[in-house]
Amino acid sequence: MMQLRFYPYILKLSHEFTVAAGSRSITPGVQVEIGYEGFTGYGEASMPPYLGESVESVTAFLRQVDLSQFKDPFCMEDILRYVDGIAPGNTAAKAAVDIALHDLTGKLIGLPWYKIWGLNAVSAPYTTYTIGMGSPEVVKEKVLEVAGRFRMLKIKLGNGDDRALVRSVRSVTSLPLTVDVNQGWHDKYKALDEAAWLAEQGVVMLEQPLPKDWLDDLGWLTERSPLPVFADESVQRLVDVQRLKGVVSGINIKLMKCTGMREAWKMVNLAHALGLKVMLGCMTETSCAVSAAAQLSPMVDHADLDGNLLISNDPFRGVQIKGGKIVLTSAPGIGIVEA
Amino acid sequence: MMQLRFYPYILKLSHEFTVAAGSRSITPGVQVEIGYEGFTGYGEASMPPYLGESVESVTAFLRQVDLSQFKDPFCMEDILRYVDGIAPGNTAAKAAVDIALHDLTGKLIGLPWYKIWGLNAVSAPYTTYTIGMGSPEVVKEKVLEVAGRFRMLKIKLGNGDDRALVRSVRSVTSLPLTVDVNQGWHDKYKALDEAAWLAEQGVVMLEQPLPKDWLDDLGWLTERSPLPVFADESVQRLVDVQRLKGVVSGINIKLMKCTGMREAWKMVNLAHALGLKVMLGCMTETSCAVSAAAQLSPMVDHADLDGNLLISNDPFRGVQIKGGKIVLTSAPGIGIVEA
Repeated sequence: MMQLRFYPYILKLSHEFTVAAGSRSITPGVQVEIGYEGFTGYGEASMPPYLGESVESVTAFLRQVDLSQFKDPFCMEDILRYVDGIAPGNTAAKAAVDIALHDLTGKLIGLPWYKIWGLNAVSAPYTTYTIGMGSPEVVKEKVLEVAGRFRMLKIKLGNGDDRALVRSVRSVTSLPLTVDVNQGWHDKYKALDEAAWLAEQGVVMLEQPLPKDWLDDLGWLTERSPLPVFADESVQRLVDVQRLKGVVSGINIKLMKCTGMREAWKMVNLAHALGLKVMLGCMTETSCAVSAAAQLSPMVDHADLDGNLLISNDPFRGVQIKGGKIVLTSAPGIGIVEA
Repeated sequence: MMQLRFYPYILKLSHEFTVAAGSRSITPGVQVEIGYEGFTGYGEASMPPYLGESVESVTAFLRQVDLSQFKDPFCMEDILRYVDGIAPGNTAAKAAVDIALHDLTGKLIGLPWYKIWGLNAVSAPYTTYTIGMGSPEVVKEKVLEVAGRFRMLKIKLGNGDDRALVRSVRSVTSLPLTVDVNQGWHDKYKALDEAAWLAEQGVVMLEQPLPKDWLDDLGWLTERSPLPVFADESVQRLVDVQRLKGVVSGINIKLMKCTGMREAWKMVNLAHALGLKVMLGCMTETSCAVSAAAQLSPMVDHADLDGNLLISNDPFRGVQIKGGKIVLTSAPGIGIVEA
């Protein structure tokens, strides 16, 4: 009999983090466990406030989840279809159950999920490290602090003088950069000008340059941009992938928005079949959800799996970053142990 | 170190089998084994002569497969990408390696693949049983012989007086029927008339009514047909699925044409994401390849997994048909044991 347990867990950020939506020093989270025959599968919901879920909504959702009706945790398709059907939305709450279930079944099998999926750990990509927003001086300082540990950095634009910010990053590092605009530009011609200029500055990828529903303009830009254009806010779940074929170069998959590992795996395969590249992203998360996402990483083109590096109270040890590269371990399930 | 072994194995048909391409009493096959750390994974290539592969072509292909370069059988994505890259075509030879590798890794894990994929055996569908071509009298006799054991029968049309044949089947059974035309009709208007008439006769599905490349006509027919239209010859591999969205109601996936379980799994998920239904088919095969295909069956809408029921020299025991329903066992890998 599977037993679902959960409790709020507030993630403390090592440094205040600024995105277009505001600054904060914590991220609300909920930790989940599924107990079964002496094994425990761990899962996690992370709820950056601007996405609409909260400790209250996640715990209210999880209280409705009755796993006692399922005898076999391996009936994942049935179990997760049931969980998804409890209520619309609630993607982080659903992801927490999905991750815990995968951790449990992987432990019952005795293998990490990347192996069960037939992937080679050697193919795991380098991850970017995201530099939060700030004045050019603050950003420069953050870059200097981390540049030695990564092969590629991600910077956030669209919230001020973008070129000044890129110039100040460039004054302290020659690392390749990816750029996340978070829907911050509102003119496709300006976006194309910026993309061309950014390409000259050693930027290699452009994420969500225009508002999420501007698919015609995103398609226009992708066709002309010297940089590959990835959709983030434009894509949440499996059902959103198809309409992005021919619109963008690739999609950013995050467990917290797509309901977890099982749907993410289907999204990676669908994206590849449609000729779309894939990036794997995360929220501020503990090593639990980040290690879960990392199981998929040998399949993807870009990874931005730095969420656990940003917090000071990580209760787990899991995937490691060595010389900027994602290093998967042979630990079963999602590959974590309690810290 | 993985060791690949293979040997020809000629399948003896219990009854001479007639399709549009001719009659035969044997089907050439090649049995494959991958040995690894005391475990043996079984695979199989089946080569109906009209599909272009042979014992010679399959053994020539398999002689080129060097698995010694891979230390870990779980690196299935890498291994199967390498096998696929050895030469184009050779889909049955490739499927044999894929099936043996899945049988091996499933045995190493200790679970059947339907469980590893998160599927519920209870959801496995009923299978059709295919009545080979023949005179109305011969067909009637065959139907009487098997009708008690199945919930649905499949008949082959497009090679003579279709209505006379259906009438003679209907004179001895009221079971729902599926119809496989094997590209045998060449006029979309006639096809629509036939579909309407067949629907009145209790036919529930129409397979490949028109030539495989007549996508416009297939789309025209699907839009108007009272019966769902499935593509078989129009779809071989993953890359063929996308163009059938909006063209047909569903696709027939067979391991021997799609290179095996891994690609088949991706095809099922892609088809569902594109709104296509899925049917699982087979060639004349031993319980090896049929049981491998059956691992996917809880995901599909129709199954025609009768290939092992047609032969008299099956060297394995695996998936069973009980009251017409596919019954998966808990045996690991592809779920077979030597008979």
